[in-house]
Amino acid sequence: MANKRASLESITLLGAGLVGSLLAIYLKRKGYHVTVFDKRPDLRKTGEVGGRSINLALSRRGYRALEEVGLAGEVQKLMLPMKGRMMHDEKGNLTHQPYGKEGQVINSISRGRLNDLLVTEAEKLGVKINFGEKCIDVDLKAARVQLENSATGAVSKVTSDIVIGTDGAFSALRNVMQKEDRFNYSQYYLEHGYKEISIPPTASGDFAMDHQSLHIWPRGKFMLIALPNLDKSFTCTLFFPFSGQPSFESLHNEKELVAFFQSTFPDILAYMPDLAGEYFKNPTSSLVTIKCYPWSSHGKTLILGDASHAIVPFYGQGMNAGFEDCRILNEVIEEQDGDWPAIFEAFQKQRKPDADAIATLAFQNFIEMRDKVADPDFLLSKKIEARLHQLFSTRWIPQYSMTTFSDVPYAEALAIGQQQSAIMERVMKTPNIEVTWEQLDFEAIVNALDQRKITLKTQ
Amino acid sequence: MANKRASLESITLLGAGLVGSLLAIYLKRKGYHVTVFDKRPDLRKTGEVGGRSINLALSRRGYRALEEVGLAGEVQKLMLPMKGRMMHDEKGNLTHQPYGKEGQVINSISRGRLNDLLVTEAEKLGVKINFGEKCIDVDLKAARVQLENSATGAVSKVTSDIVIGTDGAFSALRNVMQKEDRFNYSQYYLEHGYKEISIPPTASGDFAMDHQSLHIWPRGKFMLIALPNLDKSFTCTLFFPFSGQPSFESLHNEKELVAFFQSTFPDILAYMPDLAGEYFKNPTSSLVTIKCYPWSSHGKTLILGDASHAIVPFYGQGMNAGFEDCRILNEVIEEQDGDWPAIFEAFQKQRKPDADAIATLAFQNFIEMRDKVADPDFLLSKKIEARLHQLFSTRWIPQYSMTTFSDVPYAEALAIGQQQSAIMERVMKTPNIEVTWEQLDFEAIVNALDQRKITLKTQ
Repeated sequence: MANKRASLESITLLGAGLVGSLLAIYLKRKGYHVTVFDKRPDLRKTGEVGGRSINLALSRRGYRALEEVGLAGEVQKLMLPMKGRMMHDEKGNLTHQPYGKEGQVINSISRGRLNDLLVTEAEKLGVKINFGEKCIDVDLKAARVQLENSATGAVSKVTSDIVIGTDGAFSALRNVMQKEDRFNYSQYYLEHGYKEISIPPTASGDFAMDHQSLHIWPRGKFMLIALPNLDKSFTCTLFFPFSGQPSFESLHNEKELVAFFQSTFPDILAYMPDLAGEYFKNPTSSLVTIKCYPWSSHGKTLILGDASHAIVPFYGQGMNAGFEDCRILNEVIEEQDGDWPAIFEAFQKQRKPDADAIATLAFQNFIEMRDKVADPDFLLSKKIEARLHQLFSTRWIPQYSMTTFSDVPYAEALAIGQQQSAIMERVMKTPNIEVTWEQLDFEAIVNALDQRKITLKTQ
Repeated sequence: MANKRASLESITLLGAGLVGSLLAIYLKRKGYHVTVFDKRPDLRKTGEVGGRSINLALSRRGYRALEEVGLAGEVQKLMLPMKGRMMHDEKGNLTHQPYGKEGQVINSISRGRLNDLLVTEAEKLGVKINFGEKCIDVDLKAARVQLENSATGAVSKVTSDIVIGTDGAFSALRNVMQKEDRFNYSQYYLEHGYKEISIPPTASGDFAMDHQSLHIWPRGKFMLIALPNLDKSFTCTLFFPFSGQPSFESLHNEKELVAFFQSTFPDILAYMPDLAGEYFKNPTSSLVTIKCYPWSSHGKTLILGDASHAIVPFYGQGMNAGFEDCRILNEVIEEQDGDWPAIFEAFQKQRKPDADAIATLAFQNFIEMRDKVADPDFLLSKKIEARLHQLFSTRWIPQYSMTTFSDVPYAEALAIGQQQSAIMERVMKTPNIEVTWEQLDFEAIVNALDQRKITLKTQ
């Protein structure tokens, strides 16, 4: 619903990435005058994705926002559903673990193609997107942005009613906010980095592995994962320590690299025709968690998405959280009837605990994916949880499902999950649990949990 | 001892505050070619202290460094020894709690006069200090600093072998480092701010209160403190929430202010002739804790003091920690024989846990000062600890004494203190402890503590 005051108000967005272009669509549909500036060139022309990961996992929260702005049909064409995790052990043996029940999937999607779709849709609605315009300063009180054109070097100033920074983990707007008194901020890097390596289609033009799974090679302190692409290739990502043994630092040449893959990921080597070429050419990227508060300043500026809460990628929720930000901001604009200082205050107060929660969940999932998914006790506890969910479908919902297949606030998903973990820890101490688990008193287990009914969605 | 290579090497220091000017002295004495740039004007000419607190508590760690560079005699002339805390309750009743044993004192010292002394000494040794030169950028790999002259606006570049940032909590050098990959960083503000109010000498020209104490008005969620000055005035600092009831936000005018002081700090009101004038004129400053790592970059730059570890002021250790940084860096330069990349690596590795520990201790002392010092149980436990220390002077040393009167690394003081707290918590559960405490088995209590002998110093 368009707001009465909207047509009078101008909004400048910094960043035409996934979150920025979706937010532009939301705001334009509400009637605001929206202009976007992005420091990068138009990615539809260059075909680059700016050094970011190639594919992402789209799940319920992100999909819901895309659906709200009428893009469900278009987006579905880009999605490759993944029904579960396929674990590869050191001998090449496979174990499949479904993500949820029938129909509950996460979707591999190309960052570049989704971004293209959103940028094109925003422009179709009348949003003006200016590429190659780098934000070099912001006057927070005046909502005035200073921009530098990357081609000409020309500097210009743009003043609007509102400035929103959707300019990612290294947000220029947030850098300015950081110098404001009483702005809390942290950036923490993992000891691990990541590197992408591709698996092309087979000679016969097919996927090299099951394309309805997210593949994981969990190896304790590190892991490899692979997501399918529409062109029947996979993109693998090696999450690996920067230093130590083994690490990015410890593999010096093709011989060492191949020997390491041969002993550690034996079943994948044959599918990587250019392993060494890509490994030594592709960048090693770092993984950062960024937290800050407040997200708004002087009632005129706001940061959103990675700009206000960058997380590690292990829950596949970075984009989904950013898209959910857009949906919730849109709701809050309605609730507060277009009063921006009130909108910003209400939005950040509501959303900050959820942003903190998904940061925690994302980090925990790293430990789970690289380490625990190979542990028989962990797999048994997941089996018991699946049974609990089967018997009490609205009363015991695994944390993964709440996060991935529902709209429950992340902070609630985290809190309920912590309760479930404590309960499951006690359950797993039952003598001979490996053989007796089907005789557990499942009702008593569910009754130990504080009750809240949650509805799961397939998309 | 001057290093052989020292005379060949040039060091640029950013910031001629307390830590910068002391470090300049240390490095010049070693034979390095030292140049300092400070964005502020020469404070010996302006008499200002740049909006920072007026007086500080100098204790063992800071004094040791000053003594090492031969300034003990000069510094002593500026020191006002404080033997303990003087607590003022809501009725104006006083309770005195000594900081340590006879001769163990902390010293109130004027920030401005100590800074003048250090800057003058550095210049005397041949250090060139350039005032009014603001660092606007640093090339970390080239050790090249870009400066802007505040009078002329002229921009100049200075390249040296090494750049060290002693430019405080809002360090320009650290701001550049923050943009480097894998630089961990956090800035967290307290919900409390502070405001200074002065107590002039009495009509007869004397101190208005006991000048050998640090005065505290502990009031639970907030507090007032006062430190004596050489001119027989006191400087009071109100540590108070920014918002809520009561807070800086809740006192709107002279009437409300005076009524609040009348009911909350009744015994001090008469000594503050210009309470409202100062309260409504003086700034309300915020309190930040800053942590980061690494402290060095490319083997050419280092940050030190508040620039790498700004803490809240409640343990009186900010300056002491910064001076101890200088002493330890000086030692590490010797140990590593002037090899700068090795010096920086060894220094930051050794010192980071101590910087984190004093940040924790400083925050804990805020809770202790504003809240616990008025609690009878707390006072009893301190009395028992004092007895333990009296009986076993090298085996049970209160945490405050380790931090304030010894050179034990802060991280050790924190760890031993945590053990002591756990032991004391059990001791305090003894039935009727208030009346039976003298019958405790003190030897058994001390034996429960992991043993490490620590020597305390009077200065």
